[in-house]
Amino acid sequence: MTELLNRNLLSLDPHDPQRFVALAKNTEDCLLLTLSEPDFGISDVVRTNIPKSLEIGRTHYVPNPGDDSMRVAVADFERRTLGLDYSYDEVITTVGGTEALFLALQGSLNPGDEVIIPRPAIGLYENITRLSGATPVFLDTTEDAYQIKGDKLSALITDKTKAIVLNSPNNPTGTILTSESLQAVKDAVAGKPIFVICDDVYNRVVYEGTCPSFAATFPELKEQTLVVQSFSNSYAMAGFRMGYLLGAKAVIEKLNLLHTAAVNSVVAFNQDAAINAIHSDIMGMVWAYDSRRKFMEEKLTALGLDYVAPQGAFYIFPSIQKFGMDSETFCTRLIQEAKVAVLPGSCYGAEGYVRISYSAPMGNLRAAMVRFENFIKSL
Amino acid sequence: MTELLNRNLLSLDPHDPQRFVALAKNTEDCLLLTLSEPDFGISDVVRTNIPKSLEIGRTHYVPNPGDDSMRVAVADFERRTLGLDYSYDEVITTVGGTEALFLALQGSLNPGDEVIIPRPAIGLYENITRLSGATPVFLDTTEDAYQIKGDKLSALITDKTKAIVLNSPNNPTGTILTSESLQAVKDAVAGKPIFVICDDVYNRVVYEGTCPSFAATFPELKEQTLVVQSFSNSYAMAGFRMGYLLGAKAVIEKLNLLHTAAVNSVVAFNQDAAINAIHSDIMGMVWAYDSRRKFMEEKLTALGLDYVAPQGAFYIFPSIQKFGMDSETFCTRLIQEAKVAVLPGSCYGAEGYVRISYSAPMGNLRAAMVRFENFIKSL
Repeated sequence: MTELLNRNLLSLDPHDPQRFVALAKNTEDCLLLTLSEPDFGISDVVRTNIPKSLEIGRTHYVPNPGDDSMRVAVADFERRTLGLDYSYDEVITTVGGTEALFLALQGSLNPGDEVIIPRPAIGLYENITRLSGATPVFLDTTEDAYQIKGDKLSALITDKTKAIVLNSPNNPTGTILTSESLQAVKDAVAGKPIFVICDDVYNRVVYEGTCPSFAATFPELKEQTLVVQSFSNSYAMAGFRMGYLLGAKAVIEKLNLLHTAAVNSVVAFNQDAAINAIHSDIMGMVWAYDSRRKFMEEKLTALGLDYVAPQGAFYIFPSIQKFGMDSETFCTRLIQEAKVAVLPGSCYGAEGYVRISYSAPMGNLRAAMVRFENFIKSL
Repeated sequence: MTELLNRNLLSLDPHDPQRFVALAKNTEDCLLLTLSEPDFGISDVVRTNIPKSLEIGRTHYVPNPGDDSMRVAVADFERRTLGLDYSYDEVITTVGGTEALFLALQGSLNPGDEVIIPRPAIGLYENITRLSGATPVFLDTTEDAYQIKGDKLSALITDKTKAIVLNSPNNPTGTILTSESLQAVKDAVAGKPIFVICDDVYNRVVYEGTCPSFAATFPELKEQTLVVQSFSNSYAMAGFRMGYLLGAKAVIEKLNLLHTAAVNSVVAFNQDAAINAIHSDIMGMVWAYDSRRKFMEEKLTALGLDYVAPQGAFYIFPSIQKFGMDSETFCTRLIQEAKVAVLPGSCYGAEGYVRISYSAPMGNLRAAMVRFENFIKSL
């Protein structure tokens, strides 16, 4: 009966990095530099307050877009920290950043629409686009240090363009989009019927200053802007599946109908956990990533590998072009011969690179990079 | 920009019972018989074990379809209690029954397909169908005591029929589909490219014996059967958003791609809570519903209202046709004049009826039925 299923689902090519993770986990003593979430635990304030939420009976349905208290907390936080101008009724509380992204894309796309996806990028943007019967149009940023150039972007815009997805800091490169990149996007879409979907889920994991926000920079484009946010990376709460979507009220009201049909609502007591997390201090975690980042940069520089220095998130994306093999071969051999796992650039639409996640204890990073160096030298 | 959104989303008519709930909550001293989840709290074994899950770090991503331990527990439970023959890799753990239903419909439907929905039914089936660009085809069961008649069903099947949704026990009537109804469905779909989507979320809240299961009765139709299940009703865990979808392995593997794109995975530690819940005793809760059911039947009989006796869930669906007003007018007046809230049959595709939820303490039911009687007599 599978042939009867939704055609868009059947056409999906998941480009799934999970098979490399599975290979690594089945390889004895393999060190994994593949994690796509913090390796840290949750904060005490989150952990110790959940029993209280359960005791007072926060175990029933909540309103579809989330409790007002949750939506107010999120709107206040975004206003205070980044200057985003959204009120509580312009927030949908979602099942992680994933569902927020799903609502933004699935809720805006009609079959035949086009979505511009700057790459390198996670496969999720492409997959949701294809599930909607729309067409991904890729903007290759590898020649531009992962920034967006106005002329290249404009060349891709057609009458069918419905959305562009921005991801800053970026997974898999750790790059932050500059003000010039954001301006290029604004110039390309202002006045056009195109949504700007900002996947900002890493924007609290930033090493110097703050990450320029498209929504805060161009509030005049609010009607066509959607912001995807998550508690997974900032607060090490991936397993809580909490995130949110920000947008203009009329758009959010419609997208809430999709949210209601897809999941009904989020976990009641995890809203309390999220509000507690918002008020917790995450700088210790960010500093730890920063130390690891400096270590990784030193090692890769010493090995003569090219990379763009990450400014946020916990990934670095060196070129492996000089080794004359594709990234999947490189990653497979690295696991099998050196017992270190990283992910191939092909999973992110960028052949000739690998993604190294430094969401791992420093001891593991040190040991892994010794093995990595030996592997490189053996080639 | 709302006019640019997904056309299927824009065409949605939510028939939303929530506006009656909102009216009731804004009416001082109004008694609500509108709840669509248990009014009970969670069991101690669920509540007291969550802190342990958090302490051992169950706060990270889990595999997309859920942990193997969760999937094994669910498959074992269904086999042991109802004789369903599914293995762990034929389970996707979902965000409540809602997401399981969303995966089943959105994952199987192409634009133009038809879905047969016996009514009375919740609006969710119609909404997800329309979101997929498919067409709902309604089978009116009100003349048949909410059972499915083979001739009426067969008359609705066309080349475009892709699925039929069964809901037993039914929301809003509390009716259980008889073996004859299930046989009629089997005869109509066997050998045809039609999925049978069994929304079985109330099938542990049953007053006598067990609820006949389509999947258990016709294992030979496994390839075209999908079972939607939830922890919300059986274990009073609506706020945990835990459910699952059962299907043949090849189908489940494809639907897992949609699940991955929509939500990634469920809440890590809520899986532990769900496994604990499965092994808890729910009969106290079921007996309480049974007492309330008998009370409601006595009252409605004494008032001379027609109804089909509920066999499960916690709803009763009397006719109000004799009062010569539509169900929305009846419900609005009942709230405003008698301060009792029930939901109009129109929200369930059955004009001339109201849904009374007896998921409320007996004291509230007694007080509400006094008011209800006075209202009826005033008409």
